[in-house]
This record gives sequence, structure tokens and C-alpha cells, in this order.
Amino acid sequence: MHAAIDPIARMAAQLSRLPGIGQKSAMRLAYFIAAQPEETVRELADALLSGRTAIRMCGQCGNYTAEDPCALCTDDRRQRNILCVVRDPRDVAAIERMREYQGGYHVLHGAISPMEGIGPEDIRIRELIARLGHETIDEIILATNPDIEGEATASYIARVIKPLGVRVTRLAHGMPVGGDLEYVDAVTLGRAFEGRREI
Amino acid sequence: MHAAIDPIARMAAQLSRLPGIGQKSAMRLAYFIAAQPEETVRELADALLSGRTAIRMCGQCGNYTAEDPCALCTDDRRQRNILCVVRDPRDVAAIERMREYQGGYHVLHGAISPMEGIGPEDIRIRELIARLGHETIDEIILATNPDIEGEATASYIARVIKPLGVRVTRLAHGMPVGGDLEYVDAVTLGRAFEGRREI
Repeated sequence: MHAAIDPIARMAAQLSRLPGIGQKSAMRLAYFIAAQPEETVRELADALLSGRTAIRMCGQCGNYTAEDPCALCTDDRRQRNILCVVRDPRDVAAIERMREYQGGYHVLHGAISPMEGIGPEDIRIRELIARLGHETIDEIILATNPDIEGEATASYIARVIKPLGVRVTRLAHGMPVGGDLEYVDAVTLGRAFEGRREI
Repeated sequence: MHAAIDPIARMAAQLSRLPGIGQKSAMRLAYFIAAQPEETVRELADALLSGRTAIRMCGQCGNYTAEDPCALCTDDRRQRNILCVVRDPRDVAAIERMREYQGGYHVLHGAISPMEGIGPEDIRIRELIARLGHETIDEIILATNPDIEGEATASYIARVIKPLGVRVTRLAHGMPVGGDLEYVDAVTLGRAFEGRREI
């Protein structure tokens, strides 16, 4: 890049650190930002920094929140005896969008991955076990991703929690609604057969 | 979005104003930013705001620059008698990447578009004519986009400049290098035939 537009290159370098934004998109965004009024860019920069500063982790469920404990943990209308265990705060948002689940959450902030050197002690499993000690939990729904790390995490948690006498469940595998049988991978199709139900 | 994670919704709202970033990507980016150390987010926010603040428009060519006049306008190795007229600063960057053009630039910051109510007086055409008055220019290369607005802009500029006795050229239309004839649109193919050259 030419020295004359160093500020644009600097913006692009920072933007390209965001997920899904490559060198080219970052450049495009930098030029876009350069063309915006300074006030608009200030709003964006402020929203990012003040947003990040305002976000903390709920001491109970681990979800992102502006206030600790979070609104989900303090909502009296929710069932306190079921916990849905997810990998990331984004998963909480996805489940909330469904508007059907009324229990609590526990966010692990990661998944067990020997390949990346992430063990059970690196994610919030200790905190989950502590919650089982001082909350009255009847069921743990393991909603980690249906991938290698998610499965490993789910089976590890099931192994340590089942002896405590808590019901442990896992989200069903099967055909995606609206999906096309022809395009469903064999493993998923196999799980869909296994989990078939009478109609 | 749940009230508990308002800061994330605020970040996402700002991010979704960027081009090519829809609601879903904006949410994904906001969650990513929430998971970064505060220092990292500060660097991003600072780069955007200080980048925008540092950028000005070169008083001569109109390209973005940290210093006015820009490095391209003050570079003695470049030919001063040819000007390449482009729509946006991004186009300057694209042409510079080619590393073949050695003349000067003139950035219009827009294109004539009756549909959007953008007339000749809304883009930097007046400044271009002024440059022809006090610089010694032998050729104007019109490198506006090969779309309706770009063509309209190019023919308008050609019309007002040709009477001044300056040579006015337009970038060639034709087959993209590495392209497949079968997939080239008819208009482009027509132009490629028109512009055919002896080999």
C-alpha cells in the first residue's frame, strides 16, 4: 500500500483481525469508513469500545451481561431446576430465539479439544459442578455442538455428573427441518434412523 | 435481543451499518468482540477513529491521504502531463497495484447519476477543469467504471474537456484476461470485436 494512505492500511489491518473479514473486505471497509463523516466513525468506535467495557460475564451462568447476575438468571418466570449447557454466549442467544426453552443456562466458554490443548479444567465445568452443589438441579441438557469437540465435552460432563444423580440429556440428532434427505450426511441420517419415533 | 446483552446488540447495530455486513454477521462480530481482551478492542476502536481523523482529501487529486498534497501528487518520478480520472480513492489503489501507470490522478468522488440526483456539479469535475487551467496536461484518461453512471460521467467530461484541446481517452473494453468467451456478456463481446487489434 502506498505510504500516502497509511491510515487506511492501519484500519484495514485491524479490521482483518475480525472473523470472516479477509484482506480485501478489510480494505473495502476501510475505504468505506474513510468516506464516512467523522461523527459516524466516532459512534462506531465508541459502540465497540464502550460495548466491550460494559460486557461482563454473569458470575452464575457465564453468559455475557451488562449486569451480574444476568437477566436470565434473575428472571423469576424461568425454571430454576433445569440447566442447558452450551459452549458460547452465542448459543444462548440462538436458543432464546427459539422462545421455547424456559430453564437456566450454563455457558462453558469453550469445548474440550485435545488437539488445541483445551482440557476440562480450561472451560467452566468446575463452575457447573459447583452449581449442582448449591442449586437444586434436576436435569442438565447438554447442548454443545454436534462436532468432535462438542461430543467430547458432552460425554466428559455426562461422566462426571451422572454419578451425582442428576438427569443428563443431550439434544436430539436428526434431519434438519426443511432439509432434503438426499443431502443429509450419512452419519446424521444414521442418527435420524436410530432416533426415529412413532407417529 | 434480551435486555441483558444490550451492549452486544448496540455493537451489532453499529457494525451492521458497514457494507456487506448483515444482521447475522454483525451479531457474530459483536460476540467475537465481546470475547476479546478490552485492550484489543481499544486498538480496533482507536485505529478506526484515529484513522478516520488522519485521513484528508488531497487538495490536488482528491485521493485520500494523511498529508496534503498526497505522496502521488508530490512524487517527482511520475509524469505530470497525464491524469487518470477515477470515481473513488479505491480505484487509485487498484490502478497502483497494477504498477504500470506512472501519471497523475484525479478522483471524482462519485459518478453522474440522474437516478440518484447526482449531477456534474456534485462531483469533482469543476476541480478537474481548474487543474487543466493551471497544470500542463496533455492527456486525460477516463477510467470511470464501465457501467451506466461511469459511462455518463466519462462522456460528460469528454464533452466539456475536448474543446480545450486536451487528448481524452477511455480505458479499453474487452474480454477479461483469463476469462471464458462463453461467459462474457454480449455487450462486452461486442466491444471486444469492435476493439480487435491485428496480431
